[in-house]
Amino acid sequence: MIDLRSDTVTKPTDEMRKASFEAVVGDDVYGEDPTVRRLEETAAKLLGKEEALFVTSGTQGNQIAVLTHTQPGNEILLEAESHIFYYESGAVAAFAGVQTRTIPGENGAMDPVLVENAIRGEDQHFPETGLICVENTHNRAGGAIVSPENMEAIYKVAQKHSVPVHVDGARLFNAVAASKLPITAFTNHCDTVQICLSKGLGAPVGSVIAGSKDFIKRARKWRKRLGGGLRQVGIIAAPGLVALETMRERLVEDHDKAQSLKEILTSVQGIKVINSVDTNIVVADVKKLGLTSDQFVQTLEENGILAGGFGPTLVRFTTHYDVSSQQINEVAAILKKVF
Amino acid sequence: MIDLRSDTVTKPTDEMRKASFEAVVGDDVYGEDPTVRRLEETAAKLLGKEEALFVTSGTQGNQIAVLTHTQPGNEILLEAESHIFYYESGAVAAFAGVQTRTIPGENGAMDPVLVENAIRGEDQHFPETGLICVENTHNRAGGAIVSPENMEAIYKVAQKHSVPVHVDGARLFNAVAASKLPITAFTNHCDTVQICLSKGLGAPVGSVIAGSKDFIKRARKWRKRLGGGLRQVGIIAAPGLVALETMRERLVEDHDKAQSLKEILTSVQGIKVINSVDTNIVVADVKKLGLTSDQFVQTLEENGILAGGFGPTLVRFTTHYDVSSQQINEVAAILKKVF
Amino acid sequence: MIDLRSDTVTKPTDEMRKASFEAVVGDDVYGEDPTVRRLEETAAKLLGKEEALFVTSGTQGNQIAVLTHTQPGNEILLEAESHIFYYESGAVAAFAGVQTRTIPGENGAMDPVLVENAIRGEDQHFPETGLICVENTHNRAGGAIVSPENMEAIYKVAQKHSVPVHVDGARLFNAVAASKLPITAFTNHCDTVQICLSKGLGAPVGSVIAGSKDFIKRARKWRKRLGGGLRQVGIIAAPGLVALETMRERLVEDHDKAQSLKEILTSVQGIKVINSVDTNIVVADVKKLGLTSDQFVQTLEENGILAGGFGPTLVRFTTHYDVSSQQINEVAAILKKVF
Amino acid sequence: MIDLRSDTVTKPTDEMRKASFEAVVGDDVYGEDPTVRRLEETAAKLLGKEEALFVTSGTQGNQIAVLTHTQPGNEILLEAESHIFYYESGAVAAFAGVQTRTIPGENGAMDPVLVENAIRGEDQHFPETGLICVENTHNRAGGAIVSPENMEAIYKVAQKHSVPVHVDGARLFNAVAASKLPITAFTNHCDTVQICLSKGLGAPVGSVIAGSKDFIKRARKWRKRLGGGLRQVGIIAAPGLVALETMRERLVEDHDKAQSLKEILTSVQGIKVINSVDTNIVVADVKKLGLTSDQFVQTLEENGILAGGFGPTLVRFTTHYDVSSQQINEVAAILKKVF
Repeated sequence: MIDLRSDTVTKPTDEMRKASFEAVVGDDVYGEDPTVRRLEETAAKLLGKEEALFVTSGTQGNQIAVLTHTQPGNEILLEAESHIFYYESGAVAAFAGVQTRTIPGENGAMDPVLVENAIRGEDQHFPETGLICVENTHNRAGGAIVSPENMEAIYKVAQKHSVPVHVDGARLFNAVAASKLPITAFTNHCDTVQICLSKGLGAPVGSVIAGSKDFIKRARKWRKRLGGGLRQVGIIAAPGLVALETMRERLVEDHDKAQSLKEILTSVQGIKVINSVDTNIVVADVKKLGLTSDQFVQTLEENGILAGGFGPTLVRFTTHYDVSSQQINEVAAILKKVF
Repeated sequence: MIDLRSDTVTKPTDEMRKASFEAVVGDDVYGEDPTVRRLEETAAKLLGKEEALFVTSGTQGNQIAVLTHTQPGNEILLEAESHIFYYESGAVAAFAGVQTRTIPGENGAMDPVLVENAIRGEDQHFPETGLICVENTHNRAGGAIVSPENMEAIYKVAQKHSVPVHVDGARLFNAVAASKLPITAFTNHCDTVQICLSKGLGAPVGSVIAGSKDFIKRARKWRKRLGGGLRQVGIIAAPGLVALETMRERLVEDHDKAQSLKEILTSVQGIKVINSVDTNIVVADVKKLGLTSDQFVQTLEENGILAGGFGPTLVRFTTHYDVSSQQINEVAAILKKVF
Repeated sequence: MIDLRSDTVTKPTDEMRKASFEAVVGDDVYGEDPTVRRLEETAAKLLGKEEALFVTSGTQGNQIAVLTHTQPGNEILLEAESHIFYYESGAVAAFAGVQTRTIPGENGAMDPVLVENAIRGEDQHFPETGLICVENTHNRAGGAIVSPENMEAIYKVAQKHSVPVHVDGARLFNAVAASKLPITAFTNHCDTVQICLSKGLGAPVGSVIAGSKDFIKRARKWRKRLGGGLRQVGIIAAPGLVALETMRERLVEDHDKAQSLKEILTSVQGIKVINSVDTNIVVADVKKLGLTSDQFVQTLEENGILAGGFGPTLVRFTTHYDVSSQQINEVAAILKKVF
Repeated sequence: MIDLRSDTVTKPTDEMRKASFEAVVGDDVYGEDPTVRRLEETAAKLLGKEEALFVTSGTQGNQIAVLTHTQPGNEILLEAESHIFYYESGAVAAFAGVQTRTIPGENGAMDPVLVENAIRGEDQHFPETGLICVENTHNRAGGAIVSPENMEAIYKVAQKHSVPVHVDGARLFNAVAASKLPITAFTNHCDTVQICLSKGLGAPVGSVIAGSKDFIKRARKWRKRLGGGLRQVGIIAAPGLVALETMRERLVEDHDKAQSLKEILTSVQGIKVINSVDTNIVVADVKKLGLTSDQFVQTLEENGILAGGFGPTLVRFTTHYDVSSQQINEVAAILKKVF
């Protein structure tokens, strides 16, 4: 099977497994796991923040950020199809008690003017605006890169109104690799950031959030409440460290494969690629094939390709470490055969 | 002062004060206040629901409805400028723990197709859709009437997906009076409804929520938690009963006054009435006067008229029992003089 | 019927009804109701706090205090049978998200040493101690007065650990009247206090919370979220003001009636008064009559007396404005006849 | 260093590291990780429940159980020093919105009569009793075993009142190993159970909750909200499986070591072992040494032994896989030398 459903399906590399096998570990609840400490220090430095904290998933990292930044009864501003709003089961309301106010973006980027207009004034009828969230790259916008300029403009608005900014950077390193900009060109424009070690970086488990020293201290307690305080966590931090140190630069290969895939899909009559394919995600509309996305995905599966439904007639293809250029070529052949 | 800020400013009538003075009361926490019982029975009958419950405000009624219908981690669908989303301080997230998913409406009415598209499928990434809220008349849409046809279509979608519907009918009787339809033409298309006894009906304090017997039983406990379980509540239920029994039909007078006001405003060069003026609210854009809404409101105040800011250049005028036709004429004279 | 179930059953006096009838009112959401403002100023002054806020019930006042003082994940310390823990439907957990840690008291008073031992140190496994609540007089301890010395000792502990103290003073004026101490002998030892206008003071509806200016500002928003932001609230504030100004001193009459009742009950073979009868509550154990409290209450009711079950064999009698000394004498006669 | 602070400090065995290195993995969010599936099936079978779910920690498992069993505004009954109440940072209130009602136990076991008395009747002033939690073995009671008889009696009370029972079995296998009873002698008396793979079983990370099929389905969504939905989780499930399959029976060795330690400590003048030492925990009071627990722990540390403060003069010693009998003997020598 050629698995293009998501970059989350990547298996740990041999180097990662070896790192895990050999990891020096300790009880991280006592702060005694040297491997996770090294991961956190490496991540903080890379991201240009004072401190970092290992968490078990992107969702956990985002939830901790919202819990730490906000108070119940606050309103948070976020893009209308952002992961925190769309794919986290309503957890920000259930746990942090914050109201979601969504702003439809263009290729995942919110207009800073709309953001500023949505910030609430002081009135007892209004929730206080407690946080602005930016997602980069933006999953449902097809892995679109939110530009540093947009991030800077939003951060300026935020600072003017004393509202913190959190970046859901589950795939931030895709934006970095594709843009060839330094990481801090993105992370300078926020207070906190979450990055995933799985997905394109290939680690089996884990994410990191980074921010100020005080933020991380308070975040640690919310992590404990969520059940994310682990013991000999070096076992999973070690492959995460390999991911962070060795897999970032190779993300351009995934982007190249996505470009090939885009061409392949575009060449099929009736399939239209609808996203900008900035990074490793290709979103195709199959309406003109006369198929629903479910039918199309089913047909692909019968022919050895896994893809993901993304709307009634939309299908998402995601390239990653475990799908080779060779396999992308096979996709071309299969599509030619089937359609 | 001619106070057109809101219909909430109405003073209780002499009949209401007298009803309060003479009210037979008891301890309603023990279920022994005959006046509030009479109010609740009257309201339930009028609204075509099994039972009703007195609450201290429209916000409290709406919050109780959301708390009773939903579970934390649910998502609720509501119009993008609806009162529950816009003006209740984020309480649905703070207390009920539900995520707000807003749908931009036309004149306050949500497209049933958009509503259906927003209902979540079963997936562990998704919150369950727990409630759909309809506001009628719709305050920020300028007192617009949501048609029974639209309500019916939304209720059909809701029932198909086993999602309950709550109506924020703070000004529902304005819709009834203006449309000349029976109340149940509206309330048949929902599971629960909240109506305000203050606003156009003129009672000093209070609202009522109505629904099934089981709903009201559970709602009673949430009211207690919110601190809405009162003692000799007949003192405020009595004027509420007068409001419900004697003030509904006269709402057409407020609508007539709003029509006059619309004409008056329209006749001023530079002022544009932007809403449909279905009921007792007129929204005017003063941009072409070269004024912000704050400046315009300030100028009016200096000339004896109170109105409310409703956006950067938008001003809201609301007619009600305590503003006379004579005063509306004075508004015309004042505007002529000033602009 | 001689109704000794609770002091909450008192009917408003003619003076209160008249005050309501004549009350000058306005829209309190706009801050324009002069009567409620007068009530709040009067209460703040009496209680020795900067500001005060009208709320619709004691439960609402207590909930607002907890919501304003604490953060979710905090722990609050309170007496094991205190009203906030025992009788408020778990609302502090549902709304404020705080964990209740109860301390068994002696006659309603918590040992300051136990309070200090229960304050949490800094550790990621521990909730932060966010609030200490004192109830005075203490309902389930039979209207027991918590001494100013105890309050002072607890407040010292609290201040040492930077934890605020809230007093549930639903019946604080009973403590004041019985002790002949100034109000501030009690209220000086807390940050915030809630007092009820109903109960012994006889107002139909309402309570007041008092504290610092900043506290009341933030409390106002929580009141709005709870649906306690009302319109022409003067209608109920006016009788509340009468209650506050004219009914405090007469509480000693209720205490005298309770003493009579204590003697009457004690004189019945098989009935034992088990509380100290500091104020207006008498708790009797009827076990030796061979009856459950339900059976005893039932028998009384058949003979024209209403009392309240308070445990398997415990019965609570509460004296108040609407039960006369003459009626207390009748109770003696009835008990003599029946037992 | 001889580390007797906690059994959480155990390092993964070589077999566990190897299992992790070789684990067949997949994306568990898609349900495609065969190793975690095997762990869950093994655990469900062992515990006598329909299904099981891997979670990242005992705290996460307990929180998910409370979230899944209860509604906000419920009250849960649990032992006064239980882990869920004492060591989970108030998370049950913060996330599930439930009020904690604690019942002081004897050696960690709650009296079923006290449990029944604490279950609330139907009254709008009362929270509904939503869950009873039992901890076995009980950490703060010094690893005490709660007998199957006690569990059965509590479960009968619970079932009579239709209240579910959850067992925090972080160290349940210690109770099983020590009592030589089958696992189901304990787990038959509850609806759900959480067991830890770390602690005595030695896995680096992870716990499992087990219950009915419907419970686990709903639990899965709460796990996702908490950020516990992981990807190639086989990496940590594999050592967990080794722990579950090979380490349960050897727990008796830890208990033997604890008995030796008990004798050693008892032989020191001024040290008193105060718990029953049912399993792998020894709690000693050092008051008569004239030392605080902090001073005593400090002295031990300077002499090569790590132990944990457990109260002002109480110290906890926990035996586990990574402390040998030889080391226990060294403890005797060190204590003899120092005191």
